[in-house]
Amino acid sequence: MPIDLDHILERAQEAFLFFKNVQPKEKSAFIRQIAKQIDAIRTELIPVASKESNLPEGRITGELGRTLGQIGLFANLVEEGSWVEATIDLPDPSRQPAPKPDVRRMITPLGPVAVFGASNFPLAFSTAGGDTLSALAAGCPVIYKAHPAHPETSKLVAGAIKKAIEVSALPEGIFQHVEGGIEMGQNLVNHPLLRAVAFTGSHQGGKSLFDLANKREHPIPVYAEMGSVNPVFTFPQKLGKNLEALAKSFVGSLTMGVGQFCTNPGLIFVHKDQEKEFSDAVKAELEDIAAAPMLHEGIAQSYYDSLQYLQTRNELDWVKVAKPKHLINGSAALAKIKIKDWLKDDHFQKEVFGAFALMVVYHNNDELLEVAHKLQGQLTCTIWAEDDELKDQLFLINLLEEKCGRLLFKGVPTGVEVGYAMQHGGPYPSTTDSRGTSVGAYAIKRFARPIAFQDMPESLLPDALRDDNPLGIWRLVDGKYTQ
Amino acid sequence: MPIDLDHILERAQEAFLFFKNVQPKEKSAFIRQIAKQIDAIRTELIPVASKESNLPEGRITGELGRTLGQIGLFANLVEEGSWVEATIDLPDPSRQPAPKPDVRRMITPLGPVAVFGASNFPLAFSTAGGDTLSALAAGCPVIYKAHPAHPETSKLVAGAIKKAIEVSALPEGIFQHVEGGIEMGQNLVNHPLLRAVAFTGSHQGGKSLFDLANKREHPIPVYAEMGSVNPVFTFPQKLGKNLEALAKSFVGSLTMGVGQFCTNPGLIFVHKDQEKEFSDAVKAELEDIAAAPMLHEGIAQSYYDSLQYLQTRNELDWVKVAKPKHLINGSAALAKIKIKDWLKDDHFQKEVFGAFALMVVYHNNDELLEVAHKLQGQLTCTIWAEDDELKDQLFLINLLEEKCGRLLFKGVPTGVEVGYAMQHGGPYPSTTDSRGTSVGAYAIKRFARPIAFQDMPESLLPDALRDDNPLGIWRLVDGKYTQ
Repeated sequence: MPIDLDHILERAQEAFLFFKNVQPKEKSAFIRQIAKQIDAIRTELIPVASKESNLPEGRITGELGRTLGQIGLFANLVEEGSWVEATIDLPDPSRQPAPKPDVRRMITPLGPVAVFGASNFPLAFSTAGGDTLSALAAGCPVIYKAHPAHPETSKLVAGAIKKAIEVSALPEGIFQHVEGGIEMGQNLVNHPLLRAVAFTGSHQGGKSLFDLANKREHPIPVYAEMGSVNPVFTFPQKLGKNLEALAKSFVGSLTMGVGQFCTNPGLIFVHKDQEKEFSDAVKAELEDIAAAPMLHEGIAQSYYDSLQYLQTRNELDWVKVAKPKHLINGSAALAKIKIKDWLKDDHFQKEVFGAFALMVVYHNNDELLEVAHKLQGQLTCTIWAEDDELKDQLFLINLLEEKCGRLLFKGVPTGVEVGYAMQHGGPYPSTTDSRGTSVGAYAIKRFARPIAFQDMPESLLPDALRDDNPLGIWRLVDGKYTQ
Repeated sequence: MPIDLDHILERAQEAFLFFKNVQPKEKSAFIRQIAKQIDAIRTELIPVASKESNLPEGRITGELGRTLGQIGLFANLVEEGSWVEATIDLPDPSRQPAPKPDVRRMITPLGPVAVFGASNFPLAFSTAGGDTLSALAAGCPVIYKAHPAHPETSKLVAGAIKKAIEVSALPEGIFQHVEGGIEMGQNLVNHPLLRAVAFTGSHQGGKSLFDLANKREHPIPVYAEMGSVNPVFTFPQKLGKNLEALAKSFVGSLTMGVGQFCTNPGLIFVHKDQEKEFSDAVKAELEDIAAAPMLHEGIAQSYYDSLQYLQTRNELDWVKVAKPKHLINGSAALAKIKIKDWLKDDHFQKEVFGAFALMVVYHNNDELLEVAHKLQGQLTCTIWAEDDELKDQLFLINLLEEKCGRLLFKGVPTGVEVGYAMQHGGPYPSTTDSRGTSVGAYAIKRFARPIAFQDMPESLLPDALRDDNPLGIWRLVDGKYTQ
């Protein structure tokens, strides 16, 4: 049976007109109910997700924990309630030359949202992932397009969300699960009732949805997280003191989950003097990493195609070449390149999705500044330097801030914390909208827009804007924060 | 001499890397200095602005006051400092299975911004208007494209801003004033170093910049405020009790400034039973309004062209036809239409820039719900109803919330307050981005994006994110608001 998108969007719109007015307590209880229902099917869900994604059950178990924790964060956020940016300018009837009106502002949900999940996180960035949950938390119904790489996992999770809707006695149109190909996805994005799109995946996929959405009669925002190479800048003192440990850290982050993370570091800058020692250490670590199955054959094929092309480039000096036993297995790879060659061709900034990194050998800071100028937008940049060395890198830091959403000074970019302060999203082309994050509390803001009520009778005001502040939220009243 | 946009944008980018790090106190002092320098040239400025815009000196004097007040608002906002959304998730080195890192987030300026001012507000929405000031307040350098309708006014104000930069010893590239035609504007939007666009003007102008910006190799946000018809919904009890006063209010708002406001009400819904009485009252008020010069001949020409077309439409019943003595003079006009005819053709939703309104005659609430479903995005919607009547309009209100940025229950939509709670911007096509406002404190947020610092040494952290909170701003620390 062909999918009737009109019917789906009309149901979503009808549900929206109800859902947007649901009280914070009821909405947060519904969100917690989603976590409860997913947790209730975990013994069934984990093996299915593991089988469909080729990711070990241990990893899926961890991801499930992350997913449930993330749902809890949004439930807390909604329950606390201050995220709506309630702002009140009190009236002054005696103001001259004209009375000052009563103006009250808050942010309000955009409307039905289409979510396109990721293959590499069958739970945390998929059916009940951060995009879906932040949209629901904002008060937007979600039309979730199942990822073809894990259809059964998606159905199971969708079933749990539907159960939560039923238990919470909310309209069914709040969450709808659709399956289909690229054309259906395009029709979904083009539907006049849709109000926003969230996507995690390839540059090609995200950019094409962004272009479609902008060409609509009524353009809508597209939050596409499309990955990046996440450069690591190493400095001699720091690297010299911790060479083995940092090589291990780097390889761990590069190869975790067969390198299938948006934030894995595919680019590392190493000083000429440490080139040999560090690449030897990395190589030794890489030898210990067994090739493991990638998410699906298409991804493995792309990985090897990218490497095959790179092997034709004379600028690269291969430290470790990928040698898969079976094509589905991702085998880690590393190549070195001189900085002057790297600077010449933007192709070397292109993400190779998988456990491949390019080690760029530099001689001086001026070269790194040139890199920072030329660098495309990144989800993350990482600086490994001693405090003493950082003092000389203030200008580099100033430049790198312009090129990323998250700047790290310790550790590795993978393992994105789910919290209030996280920013997962950066300048184009890492995302289509650097103003949003797809991880952490602020993800909710992507699905809301401001509305002001002028001289609205108290009895009609949303609770967030009433004089007596019945929700007890933080508000900006005549320019002062109060609770 | 042709304009060297590369040079201009390179200067802006260089200034940006300095300006973004300027301390809040210094930045707010600079903003206040802009107001001071503009105030210092008021006796010269007012007659020039009046002459170029055909607006009376009294109006320009009022607009100057508004402009200076608006600058003061942004200075206060920057000085207070909490607008940066500082958010801190403290570390937990003992967390299992992995230590929790230190993550700190704030919003940071986007980079160089192009501002295209409006013809109808030569001061408040132009060279030192809300767009320019909110971008500067965010820390973004501005390239301001002078409006060809008031070039001398623009130069004078630009001179005052440059003086403020000089007095504040800031880089000249923070504000650059460029003159040119459409092609130059397009080249500006296409420049790779540009990071955002703000625009106030026609749908055609705003939409074309939006399309250009999305087709860039690196797409950038466009905040285009393109106006709307700002419908007023009247209900019988309210109108019956206040007919003369509301007719006067309506006509005042419709014709103020020769109807050249984005928020003037070009559409009013009146119950069949009050059609004659209200249209007579409006007609009587309109007779008292003298035709007055519009901003320039092109605008007057468009106004009369639009009316000429509407006069060919049989559905319209003209209450007052515009009869200008000279083409530059805008003469107010009013026509009535049956609601079933209005619903049939979206052309009747199109803004006629000037003092023209369409009075739509309705019979029952179901028709108004149909209107609300069909209504395009608006800057404002206004409801004139007694409290008793409002009780029956909850669903209409629910629908209208989806169609506007500001919903009024008293007074008229013109006279947009400049405050913390104002929202000037609504769903497409009233703007290209309903997530922003071009009036009020939140305008600053349009020109910033989030960045997270992970495990950044305390000595490098921006003041907003330091442990000791030296700026004394409100911050979200481990999910709690503190100061």
